Amino acid sequence: MKTFAERRSIRKYSQRPVPGELIESLAAGASRAATMGNMQLYSLVVTTDLDMKSRLADAHHRQPMVVEAPAVLTFCADFNRFARWCECRDAVPGYGNFVSFFNAATDTLLFAQAFCTLAEENGLGTCVIGTTVDNPGDIIGILGLPRLVFPVLTVALGYPDEHPEQTDRLPVEGIIHHDRYKDYSAGDIDRIYAAKEALPESRYFVELNGTDNLAQVFTRFRFTEADNIAMSEKMTAALKKQGF
Amino acid sequence: MKTFAERRSIRKYSQRPVPGELIESLAAGASRAATMGNMQLYSLVVTTDLDMKSRLADAHHRQPMVVEAPAVLTFCADFNRFARWCECRDAVPGYGNFVSFFNAATDTLLFAQAFCTLAEENGLGTCVIGTTVDNPGDIIGILGLPRLVFPVLTVALGYPDEHPEQTDRLPVEGIIHHDRYKDYSAGDIDRIYAAKEALPESRYFVELNGTDNLAQVFTRFRFTEADNIAMSEKMTAALKKQGF
Repeated sequence: MKTFAERRSIRKYSQRPVPGELIESLAAGASRAATMGNMQLYSLVVTTDLDMKSRLADAHHRQPMVVEAPAVLTFCADFNRFARWCECRDAVPGYGNFVSFFNAATDTLLFAQAFCTLAEENGLGTCVIGTTVDNPGDIIGILGLPRLVFPVLTVALGYPDEHPEQTDRLPVEGIIHHDRYKDYSAGDIDRIYAAKEALPESRYFVELNGTDNLAQVFTRFRFTEADNIAMSEKMTAALKKQGF
Repeated sequence: MKTFAERRSIRKYSQRPVPGELIESLAAGASRAATMGNMQLYSLVVTTDLDMKSRLADAHHRQPMVVEAPAVLTFCADFNRFARWCECRDAVPGYGNFVSFFNAATDTLLFAQAFCTLAEENGLGTCVIGTTVDNPGDIIGILGLPRLVFPVLTVALGYPDEHPEQTDRLPVEGIIHHDRYKDYSAGDIDRIYAAKEALPESRYFVELNGTDNLAQVFTRFRFTEADNIAMSEKMTAALKKQGF
C-alpha cells in the first residue's frame, strides 16, 4: 500500500538494462489478474531494439522516453491467440465484433496495471504513454500485429534516474458515489477542482496559453474536440482493419 | 509480489461489513494509478444497499455474489465530471466521441485494478464480474448514470469466506513477444494450451457439454458469436445513448 501511495510516473531512466527474465517474471505474476472466462485476451510486446523503439517513437509524437527507456511495452488486446486455438480444434471463433474487442481491452488493461504495480514493487519505474490511441494503425504496422490484435496501452519501463514530485489528484469524495450516481452541482465542481486550480503549475499553464482558466487549457489545446474526432475516426478504422 | 502471485478470485464472503472509510482509503490509494492527462476519467459507485444490490443482480444474470457481497463496486468511465468542470469555466468540452470513451475506460480499468490489488493487500477478497457489458443499459438506469458516464467493470468486494484453488494460467512465453509480434503456429498453440486442456475441470466441461474439446465449449456455449453480436449492438446503442 505504501509503495503505491508514493508512486510517481518515471520519465528518465538509468542505463541499467531490465533483464528479460525479470520482465517474464513480472508478466507471469501479473497474469494472476482477473481475466474474462480465464481466456487471457492479451499479449505483451517488449521492445528493446533501438531501431524498433525509434520507429515506435514516430507513432508516439517522438516522445524521448520511447527511445530512451530500456524497454517499451505495448500491451495488446489479443483475440488472435484464442481464435487460433479454436481454429486448431475445429471450433469456430466468433470474436470479430466490438464487445469481444472491449472484453480483450479490459483483460489487457487489468493485466497492464498489475504488471506496473509489480514492476514498481521491484524498484522499476514506469510511465504510461497515453498516445497509443493516437496512431494505432502505425503501431500495428511497426509491431506486425495480425487480425484480432490491437494496441491499447504503451508503458515505458526502466530503473529510475529521477525522483519527481507527485502530481495532484482530486479529493476521493469527488470520485465515489454511494449506491447511485449523484450528479455534480456547480458548488461540488468548485470544491473538487479548487486545489488543482490553485497549483502553481496550473497557473503557469493558464498564463502560458493565454486562457482564462485551466479547463480552457484542456479544451482549447490539450484535448480538443477536433483532435478527438479525428482520432476516433482513425481508431474506428484501425479496429475495423483488425477485424473487430 | 507474493500476495499477488497467490491471489484468487473470491466468490463467498463473510458477513463482516467493509467499512466505508476503508473503501475511501483504498480508492484514494488507487487514484495514484496513471491517468490520461491527469484527468481521472472515472467514478466508483459503491452499492451496499440490499435492494440496490438485488436490482444490480438482475443486470448480472442473478449471480448470487452480486447480492451476497457486502459491497458491489461499479467502476464507470466518467467524462461527465470533467465536462461539468469545463462548462462551469466557460470552456467547451468536446468529449462526446469514441476515443474519449476509450480513454476514460482506460483510466477506469487501471484505477480498478489498482483498487483490487490494494484491497487484497488489506485482506479483502474481490471478484471481477465480467457481465457489465452484457446489459450496460440496465446498469445505467439502476445507478442513474448521466450522459458521458458508462459502466465498464463490476467488482464484488468483501472479506473472504472461502479459499478456493487457484485457476490455471497460460505459460508466460505464450503471452510475451520480443520486439515484434510473432504469430502462433499450430505447434505453438498445442504447447501453450496443453496444460489447460489436460486439467480435470477442462475434461469435465468437455464431457458435460458433449463437445470434442475445450475450445468448442467456449465457441458453442460460453462465448458464442450470436451472443457477442447481440451484446455488441446493445453496447454500441448504450454508448450512443450516453453521448459517446
